[in-house]
Amino acid sequence: MKIQPLKGMRDLLPHEQALRDHIQGEILATYRAAGFQRISTPILEDMENLDKSDGGDNLNLIFKVLKRGDKLEAALQSGDEKALSDMGLRYDLTLPLSRYYAANRDKLPAPFKVIQTDRVYRAERPQKGRLREFVQCDIDILGDASPNAEVELVDVTARALLHIGFTDFTVNMNDRRILRAMLAAMGFAADSLDSVCVSFDKLDKIGPAGIHAELLEKGFPAGAADKLDEFLRQGDFSLERVANACGDPSLADGLRYLLRQSEAVAAGRYKVAYCPSLVRGQGYYTGMVFEVSCPQFAGAVAGGGRYDHMVGKFLGQQVPAVGFSIGFERVCGILLEQGYHIPGAKEALALLYGPEADFAAVLTQAEALRETYNVTVLAQAKKLGKQLAALEAAGYQGAAFAGKSEIKHFAKAE
Amino acid sequence: MKIQPLKGMRDLLPHEQALRDHIQGEILATYRAAGFQRISTPILEDMENLDKSDGGDNLNLIFKVLKRGDKLEAALQSGDEKALSDMGLRYDLTLPLSRYYAANRDKLPAPFKVIQTDRVYRAERPQKGRLREFVQCDIDILGDASPNAEVELVDVTARALLHIGFTDFTVNMNDRRILRAMLAAMGFAADSLDSVCVSFDKLDKIGPAGIHAELLEKGFPAGAADKLDEFLRQGDFSLERVANACGDPSLADGLRYLLRQSEAVAAGRYKVAYCPSLVRGQGYYTGMVFEVSCPQFAGAVAGGGRYDHMVGKFLGQQVPAVGFSIGFERVCGILLEQGYHIPGAKEALALLYGPEADFAAVLTQAEALRETYNVTVLAQAKKLGKQLAALEAAGYQGAAFAGKSEIKHFAKAE
Repeated sequence: MKIQPLKGMRDLLPHEQALRDHIQGEILATYRAAGFQRISTPILEDMENLDKSDGGDNLNLIFKVLKRGDKLEAALQSGDEKALSDMGLRYDLTLPLSRYYAANRDKLPAPFKVIQTDRVYRAERPQKGRLREFVQCDIDILGDASPNAEVELVDVTARALLHIGFTDFTVNMNDRRILRAMLAAMGFAADSLDSVCVSFDKLDKIGPAGIHAELLEKGFPAGAADKLDEFLRQGDFSLERVANACGDPSLADGLRYLLRQSEAVAAGRYKVAYCPSLVRGQGYYTGMVFEVSCPQFAGAVAGGGRYDHMVGKFLGQQVPAVGFSIGFERVCGILLEQGYHIPGAKEALALLYGPEADFAAVLTQAEALRETYNVTVLAQAKKLGKQLAALEAAGYQGAAFAGKSEIKHFAKAE
Repeated sequence: MKIQPLKGMRDLLPHEQALRDHIQGEILATYRAAGFQRISTPILEDMENLDKSDGGDNLNLIFKVLKRGDKLEAALQSGDEKALSDMGLRYDLTLPLSRYYAANRDKLPAPFKVIQTDRVYRAERPQKGRLREFVQCDIDILGDASPNAEVELVDVTARALLHIGFTDFTVNMNDRRILRAMLAAMGFAADSLDSVCVSFDKLDKIGPAGIHAELLEKGFPAGAADKLDEFLRQGDFSLERVANACGDPSLADGLRYLLRQSEAVAAGRYKVAYCPSLVRGQGYYTGMVFEVSCPQFAGAVAGGGRYDHMVGKFLGQQVPAVGFSIGFERVCGILLEQGYHIPGAKEALALLYGPEADFAAVLTQAEALRETYNVTVLAQAKKLGKQLAALEAAGYQGAAFAGKSEIKHFAKAE
């Protein structure tokens, strides 16, 4: 039998799990103190829901669950590959949340401030070092169309990151509507804007010349591509200049508000910045998008945006919605690399017992010691000195012995 | 699009999730204080591993994940239904743990005292009210062949149940080896004992006459069935009588030790009992099995046993192992029904702001209030009285107002 986990998935060792549990607890504490409420949804979703979810490239990465029994037989006879499966593993927490809100909103407060921390699945190529199973840590506000919802999500997410020890990070923001209006004003057709945005998003990597070449290659009108190129070459990407380029400077009012308010709330604890090329991959975002970047990691450690049309797909009635997701794997990876120390746990003792001990009495002694310590009950080895050294190396702070009251505290390493 | 979760799976409302998070935290705290360490493994496992895992009926309930791309094409062409899938959703946490231990044991302490709390999947018939996705909460000790491992698991699991408010429960125990020896001595063939045990397990439901009829129907030798019937009709199911019936009373020494030690540790806080018909469904148990029963629930709220041959399947070398699993869904269901109160949370305030407020200042005020309260920021409604009544009904203990220092505490309901 195979002893390794499946490709792109991970076994977590005790010290990794302890860090994750602690970090998740700290993030949840920040979220809960701000009145957000945790929910959860099944890991499996209806396949049709997933297919129609505007998930962009993620739709190609869905793990599908095989039908069973008679339904599988019928599907195999039909020869239709799509019919083989009627449910799949969720690729994010936003689609399930939208379905959940539609199903349960009579029982939920308005606006609904919600937490989800849970596993999601994407059939990425494991060769690239990407995970196929990973945890996301999301907060969302549903039922609030005001830009204050964005301001609050940025505040709460940023404070969660501060709380777990991130400091030197930037919350980058953009409004897809401004970017689209600018591109439309330059002569790109309305239904081609998503594709142009994908190229534009690569500004940092391939520069203006690269974008120009890619747009021409994609067959966009040379006039439009030239105008964008000219704009990019001038290099001033202030919000004012972009707003002017889209013909209606008032389009930028929402983003100006978000930037100004977020900067005031940040009060210098983190940076807030306008990022004109920020788009984010998902098709479901309708306006503001944001991402957190930090010097320790090349990609984003958190990302989100407004998705005002997703709940409406389930409910037949629009519900404004905005969310911010912390990339939990990335955050934990960075903290683990930095040698993060989990504070405030009780001292760990080993309670050793010999073959002659009455085990029930040993457990009763352990229970009494647990008022003060975390206590692991272990059989005493023949070579006690070697065992004590191994326990100290494993992180125990001391040892106690069955039937004896004294405790041997290991010398503190410094 | 479909707004309900898939059949047999559940959306959790905020108050349900809050209870689950609290209960899981309390159980984890008991486990960790006893030196157990949490790990986690992927929800997906290799299909071959699952197939060969001795999971009993659960093997028929595995959700299989469809292959993708070229591999799927090849499988469809082959016409072999089994080839359509190479991974599946785990049906328990014991198989993944055995694989994990084989893969990681160089990095793990010996004995390894381990916690898992996570989701598992079984394609049960939802009509019966059974869940297809549910959480198990397991502790296991690997690498310890001594019966003290069983004594400790019973102690720690029982204390976790006490800690979350269960009181009137019984830990039922049996040793499969005694039961099998007794049945063999009565004339049942060695390779038929599992099937006899399945019938015997129904003693409470169908009585001796029912078991006799079922055994004859299954085609077992009438002589053996008669002997068992005679034994059952006498009604004295003491361990001593069963041990005598199996020909070698010393076979019961291990179980006698477990019962005596567990009773001493329990010290009257819960009951410990020998249950001669206890078998448990999984094929992988090799000796002791245990279950927790309580008056609030017809089935077991926890169950486990020793499985000394499972890790060996992965490692090619036997590693003794024993585990105890709390049925988290059942436990939470019972507590929710009893109106369990989550103790010790901070008082919840709503901070209300009008349209003229500076939102950054509102968030800064909220942050200061969070030293003392959990604070939800909300836009003030036009009808303030109605809003305050709704907040009180939703569980808030008071309200504060943007730019003002006084706090309106709602009258305590009693």
